[in-house]
Amino acid sequence: MSSIPAADEIDEAKERAHFQAVVNAFKYYKLCCLDRIHKSEKIISILPDLHQKRLDKYRTYLTKFKKCLDVNNSVVHLIIKHVDTMFENVDHTIDPAETNGTEIGCNYNNCDISSQKKHKMQHDVEKVQTVIKNIVRDWSEAGAAEREQCYKPILDELEARYPKQEFIDRSHIKVLVPGAGLGRLAWEIAARGFSCQGNEFSLFMLFASNFLLNKCHEENEYTVYPWVHQYVNHMTSEHQVTQATFPDIPPSSHQSHFSITAGDFLKVYKTADDWECVASCFFIDCAPNVIEFIERIYEILKPGGIWINLGPLLYHYSDMPNEISIEPPYDILMDIISDVGFEILKEKTGVKTKYAQNPNSMLQNEYNSVYFVCRKPSS
Amino acid sequence: MSSIPAADEIDEAKERAHFQAVVNAFKYYKLCCLDRIHKSEKIISILPDLHQKRLDKYRTYLTKFKKCLDVNNSVVHLIIKHVDTMFENVDHTIDPAETNGTEIGCNYNNCDISSQKKHKMQHDVEKVQTVIKNIVRDWSEAGAAEREQCYKPILDELEARYPKQEFIDRSHIKVLVPGAGLGRLAWEIAARGFSCQGNEFSLFMLFASNFLLNKCHEENEYTVYPWVHQYVNHMTSEHQVTQATFPDIPPSSHQSHFSITAGDFLKVYKTADDWECVASCFFIDCAPNVIEFIERIYEILKPGGIWINLGPLLYHYSDMPNEISIEPPYDILMDIISDVGFEILKEKTGVKTKYAQNPNSMLQNEYNSVYFVCRKPSS
Repeated sequence: MSSIPAADEIDEAKERAHFQAVVNAFKYYKLCCLDRIHKSEKIISILPDLHQKRLDKYRTYLTKFKKCLDVNNSVVHLIIKHVDTMFENVDHTIDPAETNGTEIGCNYNNCDISSQKKHKMQHDVEKVQTVIKNIVRDWSEAGAAEREQCYKPILDELEARYPKQEFIDRSHIKVLVPGAGLGRLAWEIAARGFSCQGNEFSLFMLFASNFLLNKCHEENEYTVYPWVHQYVNHMTSEHQVTQATFPDIPPSSHQSHFSITAGDFLKVYKTADDWECVASCFFIDCAPNVIEFIERIYEILKPGGIWINLGPLLYHYSDMPNEISIEPPYDILMDIISDVGFEILKEKTGVKTKYAQNPNSMLQNEYNSVYFVCRKPSS
Repeated sequence: MSSIPAADEIDEAKERAHFQAVVNAFKYYKLCCLDRIHKSEKIISILPDLHQKRLDKYRTYLTKFKKCLDVNNSVVHLIIKHVDTMFENVDHTIDPAETNGTEIGCNYNNCDISSQKKHKMQHDVEKVQTVIKNIVRDWSEAGAAEREQCYKPILDELEARYPKQEFIDRSHIKVLVPGAGLGRLAWEIAARGFSCQGNEFSLFMLFASNFLLNKCHEENEYTVYPWVHQYVNHMTSEHQVTQATFPDIPPSSHQSHFSITAGDFLKVYKTADDWECVASCFFIDCAPNVIEFIERIYEILKPGGIWINLGPLLYHYSDMPNEISIEPPYDILMDIISDVGFEILKEKTGVKTKYAQNPNSMLQNEYNSVYFVCRKPSS
């Protein structure tokens, strides 16, 4: 008889299956992206001769895109190289039967993945593409402008609240960064002497941050092509093959008082009065129920602790069928924050922030984000 | 024996089915959008009491949204009121069997539309929502800023090429606007004395432009709520219920030398050396094969005729499975335009243009469009 309750067994099986699905998405990255290039090549090949001739230069670029995919794929492989040892509570033994015999090297078009599974795989591979763009946002010189917009207000606030002159050893000030993504904000906070923990739910992000934070030791050691998957709104083909090197600064160089936890913020953080500061950036709208996030942040902050927030209200679950989502606008959100008990100390709206934006694209997305600082009363 | 060849019969049946599907989307608009509000209400109703209390104000707004839908729906009904007589070549008799017995008033959630058909219907209803946003872009005071960005460069160019002093009767100058949408640009050109024909493929747009151009006689006679379908990135709930009145100017007041044709640009326009000018705005990237559009524009222009273009390179077919799409970037596109035979007269890149953008949204999308003018050589 197993000593593990049945419900836990089911949860573990689900967790294992999800882990494997994410690993597979990384493994299929190149094949799936190659398929997209092959589709373009095939379409061009059936055009009239004159049209084909007029697209000669573009066809040359399609060949270049494949080389960019190879470079990205080598990074993708490094990311999943060490994931088997990432979490001790997960059995990462791969059952060949579970993977449908779909090894790397299998022709994605001809393999026996059903149409529905293929759709899911494409969706997952898009998340791998997002990871590559996030590497550039968080850990390359090319992402410096976005980080200045998004992270600097938070870092400045921490410096102002806990000035170095007054707090000589800031390692006693515990800062939590929920929705840590690839860890740059949390790392920057730790690099300034605070004790900082990042928390992240997505395995896609966790796999990549594990590689970045633990395996990247040399400045600009690696290269990626973040925009090679974007086929529209280009001024030149060269823009599609723009490269970025990373890390702009080796993350492994500042590791003291710094950690990343994996899992759902609401499940991982339950201890009341535990943190001096919660710093959330593009995070609160990832909640199915944002009120739960606000209440939990209030609960885990020490009396007198502060919450710094920056981001839009995209509400990620908004259009997902069968998912809970509530979407209060900003004015109602601030009423809720006050109602929960926070004192609003600072508030700024219309903060221009971009998220993994291709600077050369003809389509530019920009958020008018909100920035606020609030405090849990001292008693 | 029928005198119509079998292939034509199939085409006609397809056309009739498509026409009916678009009509149905307009008919289902309110029910489908109400469903979205009901979903939010249901989610809130199962939250803990305290959370429900904290969302009291937001719940009041959900009730307001329903009233906005009623107002939008009255416009939606006016749009489809006259469509039966729009095209002479289409039999608009509705077969009750074909519509699955889904009349207005049927509870969308409980009716017998299969899941796949429901998905298609939701997709089509989103196009109705887009039509409402385009009414604001093209025919309301609220759209004036976008029209200034997108249409003014084209109108200025026409004024400069065919100055009134020199061309006293401009009705002999034939201007074609492919991708005419709701017809404002074509109408503005006609209002300046040119002979102007707009061409549009989408029945969603054609239904609405038929209503706007032929049935709207009084300034700001109607009201719509263009952002009521947007649930995320709001600063205040009031922003979601922002209204716009239309038409800012009654379109039916200037009708001389002005027409709209329905159908595929490549099928409708085949006569060589026919037009003094083609003015395309947010159009060329709607082609599966943009080269065909460029070649056809060249062909139908009279020798010495000019092509004015403004827009991005979004390439609408790019990610549609089973569709042809080629996506040359701008530099390659310009090489093709020269190669086809055009002389490039003017070129401007990075032209800031928005498309049906909610000015109050926390997410702002902006195109760095390209603007160019080129000429078909005189001989």
